Amino acid sequence: MRVLTAGESHGEYITTILEGFPKGVSIDEKFINQELRKRMSGFGRGKRMSIESDKVNIVSGLRNKITLGSPIAMLVKNKDNKIFTQKKDSLPILSVPRPSHADLAGAMKYQETDIRNILERSSARETVARVCAGAICKQFLLNFGIKVASFTLGVGGVSSDKCPKNINDIINQTKISKLNCIDKSKEKLMTKEIESAAVAGDTLGGVIELWIDGVLPGLGSCMQYDKRLDAKLASCLMGIPAVKGVEVGLGFDYARVKGSDSHDPIYYKEGKGFIRKTNNSGGIEGGMSTGSPIVLKLAMKPIATLAKPLDSVNILNKKAAKAPVVRSDICAIVACAFIAESMSAIAITESFLEKFGSDTLREISSNYSNYLKTLKSFSKKS
Amino acid sequence: MRVLTAGESHGEYITTILEGFPKGVSIDEKFINQELRKRMSGFGRGKRMSIESDKVNIVSGLRNKITLGSPIAMLVKNKDNKIFTQKKDSLPILSVPRPSHADLAGAMKYQETDIRNILERSSARETVARVCAGAICKQFLLNFGIKVASFTLGVGGVSSDKCPKNINDIINQTKISKLNCIDKSKEKLMTKEIESAAVAGDTLGGVIELWIDGVLPGLGSCMQYDKRLDAKLASCLMGIPAVKGVEVGLGFDYARVKGSDSHDPIYYKEGKGFIRKTNNSGGIEGGMSTGSPIVLKLAMKPIATLAKPLDSVNILNKKAAKAPVVRSDICAIVACAFIAESMSAIAITESFLEKFGSDTLREISSNYSNYLKTLKSFSKKS
Amino acid sequence: MRVLTAGESHGEYITTILEGFPKGVSIDEKFINQELRKRMSGFGRGKRMSIESDKVNIVSGLRNKITLGSPIAMLVKNKDNKIFTQKKDSLPILSVPRPSHADLAGAMKYQETDIRNILERSSARETVARVCAGAICKQFLLNFGIKVASFTLGVGGVSSDKCPKNINDIINQTKISKLNCIDKSKEKLMTKEIESAAVAGDTLGGVIELWIDGVLPGLGSCMQYDKRLDAKLASCLMGIPAVKGVEVGLGFDYARVKGSDSHDPIYYKEGKGFIRKTNNSGGIEGGMSTGSPIVLKLAMKPIATLAKPLDSVNILNKKAAKAPVVRSDICAIVACAFIAESMSAIAITESFLEKFGSDTLREISSNYSNYLKTLKSFSKKS
Amino acid sequence: MRVLTAGESHGEYITTILEGFPKGVSIDEKFINQELRKRMSGFGRGKRMSIESDKVNIVSGLRNKITLGSPIAMLVKNKDNKIFTQKKDSLPILSVPRPSHADLAGAMKYQETDIRNILERSSARETVARVCAGAICKQFLLNFGIKVASFTLGVGGVSSDKCPKNINDIINQTKISKLNCIDKSKEKLMTKEIESAAVAGDTLGGVIELWIDGVLPGLGSCMQYDKRLDAKLASCLMGIPAVKGVEVGLGFDYARVKGSDSHDPIYYKEGKGFIRKTNNSGGIEGGMSTGSPIVLKLAMKPIATLAKPLDSVNILNKKAAKAPVVRSDICAIVACAFIAESMSAIAITESFLEKFGSDTLREISSNYSNYLKTLKSFSKKS
Repeated sequence: MRVLTAGESHGEYITTILEGFPKGVSIDEKFINQELRKRMSGFGRGKRMSIESDKVNIVSGLRNKITLGSPIAMLVKNKDNKIFTQKKDSLPILSVPRPSHADLAGAMKYQETDIRNILERSSARETVARVCAGAICKQFLLNFGIKVASFTLGVGGVSSDKCPKNINDIINQTKISKLNCIDKSKEKLMTKEIESAAVAGDTLGGVIELWIDGVLPGLGSCMQYDKRLDAKLASCLMGIPAVKGVEVGLGFDYARVKGSDSHDPIYYKEGKGFIRKTNNSGGIEGGMSTGSPIVLKLAMKPIATLAKPLDSVNILNKKAAKAPVVRSDICAIVACAFIAESMSAIAITESFLEKFGSDTLREISSNYSNYLKTLKSFSKKS
Repeated sequence: MRVLTAGESHGEYITTILEGFPKGVSIDEKFINQELRKRMSGFGRGKRMSIESDKVNIVSGLRNKITLGSPIAMLVKNKDNKIFTQKKDSLPILSVPRPSHADLAGAMKYQETDIRNILERSSARETVARVCAGAICKQFLLNFGIKVASFTLGVGGVSSDKCPKNINDIINQTKISKLNCIDKSKEKLMTKEIESAAVAGDTLGGVIELWIDGVLPGLGSCMQYDKRLDAKLASCLMGIPAVKGVEVGLGFDYARVKGSDSHDPIYYKEGKGFIRKTNNSGGIEGGMSTGSPIVLKLAMKPIATLAKPLDSVNILNKKAAKAPVVRSDICAIVACAFIAESMSAIAITESFLEKFGSDTLREISSNYSNYLKTLKSFSKKS
Repeated sequence: MRVLTAGESHGEYITTILEGFPKGVSIDEKFINQELRKRMSGFGRGKRMSIESDKVNIVSGLRNKITLGSPIAMLVKNKDNKIFTQKKDSLPILSVPRPSHADLAGAMKYQETDIRNILERSSARETVARVCAGAICKQFLLNFGIKVASFTLGVGGVSSDKCPKNINDIINQTKISKLNCIDKSKEKLMTKEIESAAVAGDTLGGVIELWIDGVLPGLGSCMQYDKRLDAKLASCLMGIPAVKGVEVGLGFDYARVKGSDSHDPIYYKEGKGFIRKTNNSGGIEGGMSTGSPIVLKLAMKPIATLAKPLDSVNILNKKAAKAPVVRSDICAIVACAFIAESMSAIAITESFLEKFGSDTLREISSNYSNYLKTLKSFSKKS
Repeated sequence: MRVLTAGESHGEYITTILEGFPKGVSIDEKFINQELRKRMSGFGRGKRMSIESDKVNIVSGLRNKITLGSPIAMLVKNKDNKIFTQKKDSLPILSVPRPSHADLAGAMKYQETDIRNILERSSARETVARVCAGAICKQFLLNFGIKVASFTLGVGGVSSDKCPKNINDIINQTKISKLNCIDKSKEKLMTKEIESAAVAGDTLGGVIELWIDGVLPGLGSCMQYDKRLDAKLASCLMGIPAVKGVEVGLGFDYARVKGSDSHDPIYYKEGKGFIRKTNNSGGIEGGMSTGSPIVLKLAMKPIATLAKPLDSVNILNKKAAKAPVVRSDICAIVACAFIAESMSAIAITESFLEKFGSDTLREISSNYSNYLKTLKSFSKKS
């Protein structure tokens, strides 16, 4: 499976092509639109989100709502697209880079004096495409009982230590939260942090916990480093704009405990097979899924564009200047969570199709059942 | 550039092929052997390290110590290779998986009852190959003043907050440390932690900080998610056995601070061009290098094999059993650091060659100078 | 550079994403539309071509007609798109496969009883996307004096042995031909062949010669088999629907001559450097361009859909049936030629960007000039 | 599955790594050595072949002769390896390129004055590695009844039009031929051609026909151009040194016949399912296998190194010079055939593993049986 995304922040469309996706999968456009809406949601978002009301148009790969095995192309129209639909725009150039954005590094890489030519693509608007692809993958994974969910662990100085019992717990509790939280008391404090930041012209990041449940043992590989499931997930998540840290299971806490306290002992239970009472590994050992829920954490840095702008320099005349204040969010932790869900759905689908083939859902299901049977016989007392 | 590694822990050779590497690069075998020695070093290592004395044999890709542009194949002989050099071995099967290892997930994935057939490849012995490839890449990068260095930030409960002034500081201070530390007082405490763990039959992990210095702005890309430099580095580092967390710059601390406190304002200094006084971004903005040192952190979990073994289950008869006690390390944080250096050298070389071509060092150097000139003119007051 | 195409024959759009294409390249939409028109042209085409009037809509990757370095997404609307733009169509299923098409193999692979679900994607309509991508690449290559041209060597029983003097000869002479011919007398005979085939309800294929001129020595590689320029071109050309043979230079005639008669001796000419008086190698030696024009030949099989249909079988009831007669061409040799031009422009651009980098046209041009200088000094008498 | 090869013609070893190959496949080293012997065989070979007696040493990926699912590394020692095993050689530089070799294009690409640094890798000695990888793949494919065989169709002016009845016919008849022929009378004439060429200091190429039998319908894909089976095979075959033409089925003859005469009508036969009485398509329609034998033709150009050397130029002083006369073959058509078999075995294995998974032979076999069952039910009269 291959995914390519295209599209500028104020271009005509955000385009996605998802190639190598199996035939025979029912796709609900409404579900994709819900996911797009989630990406636009969350307390702390800015004005662009009230302008856009993203809707996907699937222009190939489906007939009568079922995938054909052919590449799936999806378009999302930008309402705010004046720049790119004109033959020639006459916008003033942008010459002051915003710290923490792609602006300066991009201008240098591409030897560009108008920063608009960088930020149009490096903008997080591009993640619309990843959510489209992720929403397709999520619908595929549901055929095998694989669910992806996430919740906000921390925003600014506030962090929650409430643990979900299982993935449904996450799904149910975050539904009613504007911050994708499962901890109501902490949610209030987070909301206040965001409100204060807004008043101060400042921005905030946060921490997200991500679960992928229902993955059976054996996705990924220990045989070559780039085929490890943790390597693939780390790449997909660190590749999200603003993400600066990724943990699997205990993550950095592993560094502070002993082996005897942190590894997940193996037990056996009639009818259930091999079980773990703990999941410190985050569901991945040796680069492969263990069958326990895959649990990841992500750190998101504060939004780079501040209302109270940071020091910068005009790249043309080299004079000190304040970074431009463009329409932006105070905190996009909720959006980031859904993008992370999408990216991990893509990564898991890739590994899944590598193991079980990718021609048709029916064939994959047979191959999957067949593997499941082997796992059961492997786990059964003879 | 492509790298493939091969080899079992007790096979005849660990083999590496590095393909797409430029012509005309001087390669010092001694340097590779030093790197291999570093990988075997560090306080807390077990007996295997005293058996092996890894030496590389470069069997192709070089003539008179200069690369030919052809694939570089490297062999490292395993001294302890009795298993695989016999036509047929008669070793007893291993049927009790060690928690936290690839053992159980691998046995299930590959439907294997003899765990030896899994652990031989999933063993960290494979990282010898990555160090070989990394040592080649490091020598290439030195032609452009790019250096890679690392130091131990924490082991078990002990963590240091000493910051290096620059990369040479790291290089000089770690030279005289058995734990790859730059903080002598903390090193003593770490050593004690390891000694206690050894006595207790336990194991420890730790935290590593990794610097890549001398990378000019513009490696990586903001144009497609899998081309981002942070995504590539995250994949390379999370793909190291036992690594469970990766941070770029402030990492998870970004989630706890405000934008105004954490982004790196941009300044201008005659003769130096655009500068930053801080480097919270860890040298990467928008998926591209900024020109500041690239700073990463890694979390390593404790070694999975314990002298005081964990609970497990015999996969054949499903009875409770203690995990096997095989020759292993107490803490391999130093080895992990050098493997991480190697992997990041590979990642940076890949991105470097994508930008500057990959045919010959001379051509790459011209292209590099040319780009450097453009950067200078971009940064010069007109 | 990566290219993905999407779109069904009667879907809403044919979509192309071209990723990794450099910044700063002027793109003329008119040129792409001309190429699309060429793809629809040629004596022997059927009715679909009179319905469609393909026009590209570039929806990302460009600003003010200059590439941004971001992915280029292009849409071409299908006028005949009733099937896929309805929520649910109620078309009768197609159950008789056409021999020589993807119909039967596809139905078996995808376990599909409605052949429409196969042919919609396997249709040559998809090549619209390749022409879009190729037209972008052609415009890039022109910056370096690289031109691609083709002409019809044979149709059915008629074959021409007229050789062009150079690539401009091909370009000029084919302009005034309805069969993309440079041999007027043979063109008449070919036209008659097609007319006869039309009357007989039959179809024809042909032979195309393809030139890529202006490629300097050293694209491609002899270092790994999948990096050879001939391997890459062969894959791109054999991947065109209906192409069943590819030759480089003398091709199969090489098998019938002696080494002394067929290899291209090397000479030296002051001011010109190393020269060849012959070009039997077709401009590729050792998997690399030699600097002579790259000359390829392709065999196209007759169109699979016949007005006088072939024997087939209904895949549902297994009864003998005639293949369905759908709107189709008699001979699409001209379309095939332009698709082949497009595919080879893509292949050459890929190899070009691998050698010279892919960030900006300006940087690539510098790197190119630099290499050119080295070639000149290599070729100069000291 | 990925394959990388390494090794110079006179280096210490030719190295192959085959990655992503399934677990549980029995590998017979003797079979690989036989294949290597075949590669060295054939009437018309030069002296190097009498020096070398290639034997593979599988140094990883196998235990007790069964694959482990880990990367398979193979070494073949060059007997004639004096150059590369010395620390520094003092060989005179080679400065006269042989026309038709990689010599001149390679020297220009890599800006190299000693042609030895090019030819050591571009030498066909590298194909030893491909034969090793191919021999592993052939053994895998035999588990599914897939066989690969080839025969010489033409050498120099002589060409045979004898058709084999089936693949066993090819296997049996070529066994007793020194030219891999199935046509004894033509073999004699070919032998004479080679003898005459030898006397004249000349060289010859030829035409090879290649069969892959037992491939069920549905390998490859019609969904994206680079996934087509014909594109993949064309790349693998055109990437063999000296191959200048590739045909699928009728190939260039398709261009000279009508659709009604050349397409393969579809019939149905109780118990056999859908059948063809002809196989002009060469077993591939729409980029997918049809179930008929895959039939390919390759054109090999004459060996580039002539005993009666061609005109060339000294690249240092630019004076006319005769190409160097190095130890070489007169005609290597037999070697080329076995290399082609190897490359196509690699290509087919790749496509096979994409469809059926790649973890273990047992799992792949289950998935395969499952697909076979579906094909049978698809083909059965209900």
